Amino acid sequence: MENGGGDVPENANDHCPGTQSEAAGKADACAGCPNQQICATAPKGPDPDLLAIIERMNTVKHKILVLSGKGGVGKSTFSAQLSFALAEMDYQVGLLDIDICGPSIPKMLGLEGQDIHQSNLGWSPVYVESNLGVMSIGFMLPNPDDAVIWRGPRKNGLIKQFLKDVDWGEIDYLVVDAPPGTSDEHISIVQYLQVAGIDGAIIVTTPQQVSLIDVKKEINFCKKVGVPVLGVVENMSGLRQAFSDMKFVKPSEAGETDATEWVLNYIKEKAPELLSVVACSEVFDSSKGGAEKMCQDMEVPFLGKVPMDPQLCRAAEEGRSCFTDQKCSASAPALKSIIKKLVKTQ
Amino acid sequence: MENGGGDVPENANDHCPGTQSEAAGKADACAGCPNQQICATAPKGPDPDLLAIIERMNTVKHKILVLSGKGGVGKSTFSAQLSFALAEMDYQVGLLDIDICGPSIPKMLGLEGQDIHQSNLGWSPVYVESNLGVMSIGFMLPNPDDAVIWRGPRKNGLIKQFLKDVDWGEIDYLVVDAPPGTSDEHISIVQYLQVAGIDGAIIVTTPQQVSLIDVKKEINFCKKVGVPVLGVVENMSGLRQAFSDMKFVKPSEAGETDATEWVLNYIKEKAPELLSVVACSEVFDSSKGGAEKMCQDMEVPFLGKVPMDPQLCRAAEEGRSCFTDQKCSASAPALKSIIKKLVKTQ
Repeated sequence: MENGGGDVPENANDHCPGTQSEAAGKADACAGCPNQQICATAPKGPDPDLLAIIERMNTVKHKILVLSGKGGVGKSTFSAQLSFALAEMDYQVGLLDIDICGPSIPKMLGLEGQDIHQSNLGWSPVYVESNLGVMSIGFMLPNPDDAVIWRGPRKNGLIKQFLKDVDWGEIDYLVVDAPPGTSDEHISIVQYLQVAGIDGAIIVTTPQQVSLIDVKKEINFCKKVGVPVLGVVENMSGLRQAFSDMKFVKPSEAGETDATEWVLNYIKEKAPELLSVVACSEVFDSSKGGAEKMCQDMEVPFLGKVPMDPQLCRAAEEGRSCFTDQKCSASAPALKSIIKKLVKTQ
Repeated sequence: MENGGGDVPENANDHCPGTQSEAAGKADACAGCPNQQICATAPKGPDPDLLAIIERMNTVKHKILVLSGKGGVGKSTFSAQLSFALAEMDYQVGLLDIDICGPSIPKMLGLEGQDIHQSNLGWSPVYVESNLGVMSIGFMLPNPDDAVIWRGPRKNGLIKQFLKDVDWGEIDYLVVDAPPGTSDEHISIVQYLQVAGIDGAIIVTTPQQVSLIDVKKEINFCKKVGVPVLGVVENMSGLRQAFSDMKFVKPSEAGETDATEWVLNYIKEKAPELLSVVACSEVFDSSKGGAEKMCQDMEVPFLGKVPMDPQLCRAAEEGRSCFTDQKCSASAPALKSIIKKLVKTQ
């Protein structure tokens, strides 16, 4: 791993004592180093911001990271629904979005167009319910379509501010939704949060091999930086739909015609027993055992599978909880049982 | 946008003349700046690496970026199949993977476990066919599960090396597969490639709103940095399957039982006409017009839709071209027509 704190600059001499060392700029190894003068004169000691983070996190009982190796596996959907579920269980919940370049949390919580307010206690989260507060760069953009074209150091600076300056109040859970990968955001959030204690990370994946390869990287990242893996969630585990939710087309040489109404009438008349079966499609091939087998191999807990469910996608798009009505009957029970497992082990 | 070249350091004084300026370290504004000494003594002028990149890119006719706002929309699958298709059209093709933390290109080209070789001409790509060479950090990892825990500067350094040191030879197309977002990798690839000329970017999305929001950011990124948008591809545009490819379960209070065989026999006997229809599922809600409408609004070309196709996922997982057999009949024709459009406009 790279030095998280930038304690040894990239252009430093060999045997650099580290910029925080008392010998910085004064050791024999420093002779001729381009950083020598800065090192010799810069203030030493721990980053005062870390002390501010420790103080701020004093009122947060549990801190959970939600990670994924690959993007688009439903990580933000999971973070959002986890937060909704914890809030419905009457916990005090904070949801922090550290995906700086592609924040989707505001939309998934139904909070598009909201602003952050400042008080003398710091930045106030945006509240969905009185016990569910949300913070995201999405609330800070004058135009939601604007690209945030930032290199690492600026992203790290904002993440630090999110931890240091947001007034979460007394909360039971802080859920942190990270972008995919193992780079600046991940090194920074772990480095900043570890001083205050992290409960662990939940890793979200799909059953497909390309996603599982990246999940292994993510698990190895957690092991390397010392963050416990609370477990792996397999999302989009096959699509399940009743016939009445599907559409049908009839292909012909002249093109396609919609046949949905005809098919449903035909089934009702000729084959009514079909109405009681559920159609399953494996969009992503899980023939190699999917996430469950990978978890055995990597010796981390497997939390469960969540079926692909167009109704869950819709709930996410509309910023709704999937637990308050019966629409997400294919996915909500699976999510609920995973979340119950998590809460039990905390 | 941040200064791409780091010409004004983050900790510089106001009115910094830029580290590359002749006045660097000597202007009035430099007094007291921590960088003053380095700036006053460092060598000036254009980055010599950029000259090396220009020279290397002299033998590359077209340079195409493949971007996406969100991850998991099938960007790497598209890049891989685009490269296969161009190679099958007898072009000389190079595919460069700049997703440093989550490289999936080696797997998608069937090249897992391959190594890069060095010659006096530079790094040799790994070849799928004699006219399709591939470069990825995936070929450089001793263990494919290892996490690449790198902050921005190291990622930028490797991307520069990929452009400067890889011996592509005389090629018609260099396809560059980028990670999702608008951060270090994107700023760097544009900055390094622009000196040699970029044809433009293809942006891949799904029909869902959360992906479209991020695509708008990506289009605005391209506009800001001056990269032409060649067009937008809508991927995973609804799942299409014949009954014979589906599985069925019968839910009951005691649990679920597999009913696939029973359903197919029942259909054959009672409702055989169903065998000629295709079932369509909209996994991602596109009721708001999807990518096509967004393209009209943003005034960029719409290249077409590629249906969600489990067979295409499988081809990607197995590192195969989807064009060489008939398995991907739901997706391959759509991909082909998009690629033909692209080649025509070049």
